[in-house]
Amino acid sequence: MFRKILIANRGEIAVRIIRAARELGISTVAVYSTADKEALHALLADEAICIGPAKSTDSYLNINAILSAAVLTEAEAIHPGFGFLSENAKFATMCEEIGIRFIGPSGRVMDLMGDKINARQQMMAAGVPVIPGSEGEVLTADEAVLVADAIGYPIMLKAAAGGGGKGIRKVEQKADLKEAFESASSEAKAAFGNGAMYIEKVIYPARHIEVQILADQKGHTIHLGERDCSLQRNNQKVLEESPSVAIGPSLRKAIGDVAVRAAQFVGYENAGTIEFLLDESSGNFYFMEMNTRVQVEHPVTEFVTGVDIVKEQIRIAAGLDLALSQEDIVLKGHAIECRINAENPAHNFAPSPGKISNLYLPSGGVGLRVDSAVYPGYTIPPYYDSMIAKIIVHGENRFDALMKMQRALYELEIDGIVTNSEFQLDLISSPNVITGDYDTAFLMEKFLPNYQADQ
Amino acid sequence: MFRKILIANRGEIAVRIIRAARELGISTVAVYSTADKEALHALLADEAICIGPAKSTDSYLNINAILSAAVLTEAEAIHPGFGFLSENAKFATMCEEIGIRFIGPSGRVMDLMGDKINARQQMMAAGVPVIPGSEGEVLTADEAVLVADAIGYPIMLKAAAGGGGKGIRKVEQKADLKEAFESASSEAKAAFGNGAMYIEKVIYPARHIEVQILADQKGHTIHLGERDCSLQRNNQKVLEESPSVAIGPSLRKAIGDVAVRAAQFVGYENAGTIEFLLDESSGNFYFMEMNTRVQVEHPVTEFVTGVDIVKEQIRIAAGLDLALSQEDIVLKGHAIECRINAENPAHNFAPSPGKISNLYLPSGGVGLRVDSAVYPGYTIPPYYDSMIAKIIVHGENRFDALMKMQRALYELEIDGIVTNSEFQLDLISSPNVITGDYDTAFLMEKFLPNYQADQ
Repeated sequence: MFRKILIANRGEIAVRIIRAARELGISTVAVYSTADKEALHALLADEAICIGPAKSTDSYLNINAILSAAVLTEAEAIHPGFGFLSENAKFATMCEEIGIRFIGPSGRVMDLMGDKINARQQMMAAGVPVIPGSEGEVLTADEAVLVADAIGYPIMLKAAAGGGGKGIRKVEQKADLKEAFESASSEAKAAFGNGAMYIEKVIYPARHIEVQILADQKGHTIHLGERDCSLQRNNQKVLEESPSVAIGPSLRKAIGDVAVRAAQFVGYENAGTIEFLLDESSGNFYFMEMNTRVQVEHPVTEFVTGVDIVKEQIRIAAGLDLALSQEDIVLKGHAIECRINAENPAHNFAPSPGKISNLYLPSGGVGLRVDSAVYPGYTIPPYYDSMIAKIIVHGENRFDALMKMQRALYELEIDGIVTNSEFQLDLISSPNVITGDYDTAFLMEKFLPNYQADQ
Repeated sequence: MFRKILIANRGEIAVRIIRAARELGISTVAVYSTADKEALHALLADEAICIGPAKSTDSYLNINAILSAAVLTEAEAIHPGFGFLSENAKFATMCEEIGIRFIGPSGRVMDLMGDKINARQQMMAAGVPVIPGSEGEVLTADEAVLVADAIGYPIMLKAAAGGGGKGIRKVEQKADLKEAFESASSEAKAAFGNGAMYIEKVIYPARHIEVQILADQKGHTIHLGERDCSLQRNNQKVLEESPSVAIGPSLRKAIGDVAVRAAQFVGYENAGTIEFLLDESSGNFYFMEMNTRVQVEHPVTEFVTGVDIVKEQIRIAAGLDLALSQEDIVLKGHAIECRINAENPAHNFAPSPGKISNLYLPSGGVGLRVDSAVYPGYTIPPYYDSMIAKIIVHGENRFDALMKMQRALYELEIDGIVTNSEFQLDLISSPNVITGDYDTAFLMEKFLPNYQADQ
């Protein structure tokens, strides 16, 4: 096992990793920007190193500064968390080159799965169902028309080199395709220096179902069931749960087997997530993408399986064999996570950084967990993601979990800034969420248009 | 199910009950003394009623005030928590008489098990092993000599009407018995108006092992495994764990079966605990007493079984059948609880009430729970028990649980008052606690004499 690891991240995930490492008897090194001197991860770790100014590109994305900190503190491994450098293949490769273990998959696999077209082709080769669409890059509008005619409308145009919502267009009918292609391709060229596109059929209505997998260095791979992350605003997950009400035992086995096969096909190691779109009426599911890192919503899986995913990540990176077999994984009860963001629902969810004057995080009782990096008197800096806490509950069943979440949100008190906690309370109280009857479009198209946030 | 319940208690257990009720969709009424106006239980409940001055006898032990509050607020049931009126048979009976459900066993059973000699006799009749000793009251020193000669020294003299450590003497040899009897009997007469004693053999070395049971109104009774509460200071539990390292599967079944038989024999209903002394070398165990209420340490059992004991209490009181059978109860992993007290280990654990200027309760990650009623800025009143929080961890195994507890205690920050958190950290770091090699005398006779608290 490692003696010391560096956590190349901030916020609740950095704190989460520090805690897991400490429980494994591993010393921790935090890195922090000048804006994060008083951040909990910097205060909690055994050592803390400033790696640059507030701006992410100068600090949490500053590969040289982070690697220097690791070398300086003699850290044996780096946990990248999520976001920032967590899916940067170059960073992973550089770590390995200087003899520091990257806690995640190899740079090669990250590269492979990071490129959307490559990933699609790999998955097709692995026999994983992908969303019907182009086989590779689509370079001209005319080519796009041929592909779209073959798969049928509506379709999505996506930038091959894309990310962050840039170079994406939904096209409802043939008449709109050429213009949409030109505009998306130009946008992609401007943003990524590459105008190549690819095409996917629109799966609608659909659920966002993702499968958590774990794979050790010997290729022993298991899945930990699914998460339903269909409740999204602007493609950002808002509330996640496990299991999904849309998945029964046989579908769970099918989608889980496919996820394991996909991971094994590309030689995946460590924790990862395969995201699918599920067409609930037919039971068909389609590969969307693979996230080659721990995810924000990993705690719901931890609650229903009892597996500590972050500890498993560290154990796997240290060369330990996975002690679990697929038969050991039994989903028990129901877990839900609500993301608490420093944002104002009454002003289109604009970020709301600032000082937390008073704080009461819900706690106690059975099946409640709060992962957070805030404390009373802490000032949330304006430079980073607005997520400041995750409330996760585990109930005997889905209704019990919803009741627990209601109790927890009712107790939560964050004074001094505006958060989305009232919004989350309203969301879990909506009939569709109570019954589980929602898809990826529900929040944006049905819930929000009728939502009146308190001012 | 009840619409509304009143919680006749304060502190973390009142908060724990309010949370459980809320998760069941039940409205809550808190009662509070004038000293507890700002207490969390009073702030958190749906309604809060002041029941009298700070002194317990005027408020939390004030039966008339509490019953009036229940009638006034139309509460359908009363949860007594632990301490205060929780084992007061008269209170339970009065509740029933005015048509308010007492969440606990009947007054009759509480009466039966509250009288130590009665309880012993009942248990003997049920075939439950009791500590060798007198069959009933011992009224004279001469009678005491006869009993002690028969069972062998050392023995304990205990007041028949006793409690709170009064009228108790340990007698090592025959020469000391008569004098000890006279003194203990006088003390008992002064304290309880009754000088009658009973005698028990001293079981030493021994472990304090208790078995949690649940019984519904139809008499369906199960046990939830054992807790080891051998780490005690002045007969106050300090740290509890489940399972006990001294109990294997066959002994667990044996002691569990006995506990269930004991509960069924007396017609027990609701949650209760049977306390035993275990002679580890012989594997013999002896009934000590039954606690007819929820216990401080119930969360360790909740962690290893997944059963919410407080919710079960409420469900049972509402007349629901126990949905669990004995086969459903599988102990998973290992749980440990540390009691955090506002007390000063450097001054013989003297209470240390006062204002909490700054507070950070550990949270997050897998298998950590903090049950507490404190918050930043809260002033702990000097009138009540010094326990202010319970940190409970659940690990894959005992070592993992100890590592988690260490992490949690390391994170805990309570400024403004002195607590025993450093003491707890030192205790769980001691070789005997790490290996599980301790008995009821360990803390007082081996650990404390060598302990140097930070000033």
